[in-house]
Amino acid sequence: MIPHNSLPEFRKDPISGTWVIFSSERDNRPYQWTEEGKEKKEIVCPFCPGQEHQTPPEIFAERPDSTTPDQAGWSIRVFPNKFPALKRNGYISHSQDGIFKSITGIGVHEIIVETNEHDKHLTDLSEAAIQKILWTFKNRILQLEADPEIKYILLFKNHGREAGASIAHSHTQLIAAPILPKRIEEELSGIQKYFNKTRRCIFCEVISEELQRQERLVSAHQYFVVFEPYASRFPYETWILPKQHQHRFEDIDEIHIVELASVLKQSLQRIMAAMNNPAYNLVLHTSPLKEFETENFHWHFEILPMRSNIAGFERGAGFFINSILPEKAAVVLREIRL
Amino acid sequence: MIPHNSLPEFRKDPISGTWVIFSSERDNRPYQWTEEGKEKKEIVCPFCPGQEHQTPPEIFAERPDSTTPDQAGWSIRVFPNKFPALKRNGYISHSQDGIFKSITGIGVHEIIVETNEHDKHLTDLSEAAIQKILWTFKNRILQLEADPEIKYILLFKNHGREAGASIAHSHTQLIAAPILPKRIEEELSGIQKYFNKTRRCIFCEVISEELQRQERLVSAHQYFVVFEPYASRFPYETWILPKQHQHRFEDIDEIHIVELASVLKQSLQRIMAAMNNPAYNLVLHTSPLKEFETENFHWHFEILPMRSNIAGFERGAGFFINSILPEKAAVVLREIRL
Repeated sequence: MIPHNSLPEFRKDPISGTWVIFSSERDNRPYQWTEEGKEKKEIVCPFCPGQEHQTPPEIFAERPDSTTPDQAGWSIRVFPNKFPALKRNGYISHSQDGIFKSITGIGVHEIIVETNEHDKHLTDLSEAAIQKILWTFKNRILQLEADPEIKYILLFKNHGREAGASIAHSHTQLIAAPILPKRIEEELSGIQKYFNKTRRCIFCEVISEELQRQERLVSAHQYFVVFEPYASRFPYETWILPKQHQHRFEDIDEIHIVELASVLKQSLQRIMAAMNNPAYNLVLHTSPLKEFETENFHWHFEILPMRSNIAGFERGAGFFINSILPEKAAVVLREIRL
Repeated sequence: MIPHNSLPEFRKDPISGTWVIFSSERDNRPYQWTEEGKEKKEIVCPFCPGQEHQTPPEIFAERPDSTTPDQAGWSIRVFPNKFPALKRNGYISHSQDGIFKSITGIGVHEIIVETNEHDKHLTDLSEAAIQKILWTFKNRILQLEADPEIKYILLFKNHGREAGASIAHSHTQLIAAPILPKRIEEELSGIQKYFNKTRRCIFCEVISEELQRQERLVSAHQYFVVFEPYASRFPYETWILPKQHQHRFEDIDEIHIVELASVLKQSLQRIMAAMNNPAYNLVLHTSPLKEFETENFHWHFEILPMRSNIAGFERGAGFFINSILPEKAAVVLREIRL
């Protein structure tokens, strides 16, 4: 029998093979938006300094030695999500009941609050502050990947209500799970297919094409390249990749972090200006772990902006429909003055 | 070179293999919602009787012989989408430029207006009226599938702003395309894998399990079964399937249509009552055509309700996260009094 009372749980669709996380905790989280989509200013933000008692104890914080954990004084603060999609403790057990497969929903769901100022977004922070956020990403992954059960660590940011944020205060979420997200599985399958045929990395190939063709290029730097992908699913979808092949983001070194902080800030600023401050998702794609780890992966960030009046159409249509060609988006983004 | 000025166009992502439709027309369509998500009542609805001049000429209408095409008097009206995702005329050409593949965006994009009353939704219509809508679906597919270039015909309904509707007046869209939607490709791959292993239809297997276990069952009828799928991606996701294996919806006969009209209306009424009139997508999955046609397909309808405060999360997280188990949703839906 399927243990219904042991949420969270992963379930696999017997037809499409898609994994779904079932978690009832998510329904209890506070929601900082009114029905009309405005931020509720009267709610005390649980991510603000002085409100540390509203969150679980911190796991890490960027703070002077003179300050006390779980009190104000930090500039970056990491803690377990109070309303997690996955449960930290317990044994991972795989169940199969006929055609129905499930796994206990064990994993990690953390919150990385990126600034102590409620109204500052990533684009308002200094490059030095963004560097520290990237160091935090790297260090959280390095610490969590030691767990033998964790097969993927996903870092993602939902900025704005329409991109799925429930809290306005700038933060990134980390989910470490015993299974791979669908989108990563799709990438992996494409990566392996191309490698088997050519012995080359498909991302390295795409980078080389984009640098040469230039038409979809937003900016090229010493270590990183920014472009609008050929089959962009969303208007102004933007990818940031290291030029040199590297499969694990968490192996990034200091000179790359310094440039990446600047490139990430610039890229977001361009999108903010071009689209008038859209909601967006920022997602890190890094290599899976353990038996799924592959040197053929090429880590990168994807920025997926949201235009409110088209949200939901792809769910019905089963197709992504994009009204702006990446070549046109790239022209607009290149022309933004920073 | 890629012909940038010949939109619409399909492009294939060289890494994940996902097809994206590029269509600039979509941006010009009217939008019947205010920024706060309320319906703009001051706009004259182009789908209402008396406004036929606002749409392209009708392809089909359910109307008395005494009435004139493209004038009032109809109860169902089908016409080409004025702001189509795909273009009707032209040659389909496949291009490949290095790793970048594209196809000219030839296909069909039609609108099926389901009632002449602006404020009526599917659940407000009589079963007899819904039967006529289902006949219209069947007949449109039968007519369009004769085109040798058309490989998939997708019927989908976006109900409510958050599900992607731009016009409130009840309608279904039809997209006929030379490629398969992603979700259909995923299903096909699961169907073939299971068939190769067992020589059986995975949907027939799931139906038999759901009828036996009962815990996810919403209702069982003479010809149809309604249940919450085991790995529901969305709260109250509901599937309607014919019990007897049939791969093409368009082969449906009268006795099945009569029951389906009643089952579809009931199922939507239950969801409307349980979730307080949510936005939703209703999608028909039927067998692909031509070289992709397979008797192993099992046609069905999927109802995908939307809860506004979780929209967008899966885009960032790369996982579907559902807070309500299908077993719980089924209890609620079964208990709704019709």
